[in-house]
Amino acid sequence: MTETEKKKKQEEEEQPEQVVNPWEVSAKDGGKIDYDKLIDRFGCQRLDQTLIHRLHRLTSRPPHVFLRRGVFFAHRDFAEILDAYERGDKFYLYTGRGPSSEALHLGHLIPFMFTKYLQDAFKVPLVIQLTDDEKFLWKNLTVDECQRLARENAKDIIACGFDISKTFIFSDFSYLGGSFYKNMVEVAKRVTYNQAVGIFGFTGEDHIGKVSFPPVQAVPSFPSSFPHLFSGKQNLRCLIPCAIDQDPYFRMTRDVAPRIGCHKPALIESLFFPALQGETGKMSASDPNSAIYVTDSAKDIKNKVNKHAFSGGQDSIEKHRQLGANLEVDIPIKYLSFFLEDDDELEHIKKEYGAGRMLTGEVKQRLVEVLTELVERHRRARAAVTEEMVDAFMAVRPLPHMFA
Amino acid sequence: MTETEKKKKQEEEEQPEQVVNPWEVSAKDGGKIDYDKLIDRFGCQRLDQTLIHRLHRLTSRPPHVFLRRGVFFAHRDFAEILDAYERGDKFYLYTGRGPSSEALHLGHLIPFMFTKYLQDAFKVPLVIQLTDDEKFLWKNLTVDECQRLARENAKDIIACGFDISKTFIFSDFSYLGGSFYKNMVEVAKRVTYNQAVGIFGFTGEDHIGKVSFPPVQAVPSFPSSFPHLFSGKQNLRCLIPCAIDQDPYFRMTRDVAPRIGCHKPALIESLFFPALQGETGKMSASDPNSAIYVTDSAKDIKNKVNKHAFSGGQDSIEKHRQLGANLEVDIPIKYLSFFLEDDDELEHIKKEYGAGRMLTGEVKQRLVEVLTELVERHRRARAAVTEEMVDAFMAVRPLPHMFA
Repeated sequence: MTETEKKKKQEEEEQPEQVVNPWEVSAKDGGKIDYDKLIDRFGCQRLDQTLIHRLHRLTSRPPHVFLRRGVFFAHRDFAEILDAYERGDKFYLYTGRGPSSEALHLGHLIPFMFTKYLQDAFKVPLVIQLTDDEKFLWKNLTVDECQRLARENAKDIIACGFDISKTFIFSDFSYLGGSFYKNMVEVAKRVTYNQAVGIFGFTGEDHIGKVSFPPVQAVPSFPSSFPHLFSGKQNLRCLIPCAIDQDPYFRMTRDVAPRIGCHKPALIESLFFPALQGETGKMSASDPNSAIYVTDSAKDIKNKVNKHAFSGGQDSIEKHRQLGANLEVDIPIKYLSFFLEDDDELEHIKKEYGAGRMLTGEVKQRLVEVLTELVERHRRARAAVTEEMVDAFMAVRPLPHMFA
Repeated sequence: MTETEKKKKQEEEEQPEQVVNPWEVSAKDGGKIDYDKLIDRFGCQRLDQTLIHRLHRLTSRPPHVFLRRGVFFAHRDFAEILDAYERGDKFYLYTGRGPSSEALHLGHLIPFMFTKYLQDAFKVPLVIQLTDDEKFLWKNLTVDECQRLARENAKDIIACGFDISKTFIFSDFSYLGGSFYKNMVEVAKRVTYNQAVGIFGFTGEDHIGKVSFPPVQAVPSFPSSFPHLFSGKQNLRCLIPCAIDQDPYFRMTRDVAPRIGCHKPALIESLFFPALQGETGKMSASDPNSAIYVTDSAKDIKNKVNKHAFSGGQDSIEKHRQLGANLEVDIPIKYLSFFLEDDDELEHIKKEYGAGRMLTGEVKQRLVEVLTELVERHRRARAAVTEEMVDAFMAVRPLPHMFA
């Protein structure tokens, strides 16, 4: 190796190629996230076809489009969840949201759409954590505003169709205490500050609220945090569907779990949903044109897709007919692969568009139809969510039919 | 200055002469704590005669023996509490205990004896925090054991005679949540890790539970942490009687308070109660012969005082008659100055003992009488504390006569 090569290698090692943690998702030089490298670095596993077939067989349901298309692509111990289920042991699901904005975008819906599928397929209980405390600690928002956003976001979550007889939604500001707090200190006692720095990258100038938070997100992984839900089923396993940027919280949780006599939570992890401008990370709530919101009108959606969705098509029709679209970078195709459920139609579009026989405008038009229908359906469902329904989902209660 | 002098000065600066924080109280080379230096370093004030006279005048009660003898010797903003009281504004008291052991020793009783006097004199509400979470985080104890100790310790605290119509006792594991947790994150957001290291001396190998704890001890200083107690009186001032090793928590709290729209809590701070072996720090729960426990029998007390109480008397009777006792280092005199209420008798003993006319054995005998009476009185009071009384003091409730 020459000196120049050595230097280059050294620089590459010093400057991480990509940063993925709960607060930042970015690749070096604005490139794409390399998910294979991420899996290696985090130490999780690829979700392979064998597991997906097994899921199909055990639940007698076709795999969700997010599984068929590799949106949920990585896992930890998912096979053990399937083993337990096959033995007749139930488990529970845990997912969540940090309520930092009024309106959710499509990226926010993905874990909830997938979690609903898992709840329906396995008929298992589900806890949904709204980390209003996290958003207070990380954002310039008041406690009251974070609580208000948590309640507004709960309506969007409920609109995804969860079964109230099996679902408990809670906000940290409302629920934290008792057994939940006891588990928090059990976790906190087993993670040193240096370990937290290694996992989350805290600095000395970060406030101690940030350092205190990881146990809050950890403990819904343990059924004893919910004595009213799981009394008598304290050794239940937990499966967490989430985007892969949340993996650090649960790596920490899995490290601590056996030391406090709990199962390690299993994970099933998704890719990031790309911004309209191109696939360089997650969508950003700070740029309204980077994302389709569930509050966008049909006209908004049409405008955003037509103006902002990055196209892999060629500059001129002639060139496009000749070369075809670059599907690898094309956002309309990417979005369709998340939300167009018909496999045959998607394959057809990709083939025709890739060969130049379909134009960007035609693909975008189909995407506008698909997204408008999705958003309209969500809006109708959300409009039907009453304050009483929110209270009912968030009531601290036993769920009598939870294990039915 | 010679090189040697410079070196010595430098070494003195590097090696602190005394360490006083919530977990360690020690002077260099096993010497006495220098309270004047402590006041300078912490930035609190001496409690002078003017304030004590004013307290006497405002409450129409003779100052407590702990004030007359300088046991409570330092303060922060105590004059402002008296100003408020004089204007007709009420305040509330906050004190607490970390329940790490079954039996309390006399040093543990001091803040509670003094707090009872303050409650009686000012007729104000009182909150008592049992930091069972702190003891779990710092000691090798289970959550259950810490909760059990909290309840046992609550009985000793109740035995000090607090007015149930004005007193709320709570344990962190039982009470933490809701408004209390909201105030915790308000505080945590305003203290950086580096600041916490500066105040508490945490290292990277300390677990994050320790880093998370200071806001827990901070927020009982704010009435909004107790919405059931103080509704409609959210701007009440708070006065904290405590030993001076707790000052770091409240320095942090006072720094944050105005930034979250709260009054800074005022403090009235005590010396450490010396060990039987001599005045080099606090009593230690790990050496049963270093302290008199409220569970000690009359015989235990007699043995401990006679065998272990460090005497300032001379080696032989002849020498003692000639030179008299060294009252500065004499533990029986020190203990009598805490617990013998009769000022004239104490002066008489000091005069006679210092002049060699009284012998150590005689002084110790008087101390045994005083301590036996104190411990017997406490034991009778504690035996009368029922589980129902503990439940009643710890019930989350409004206190209807709180401001009567």
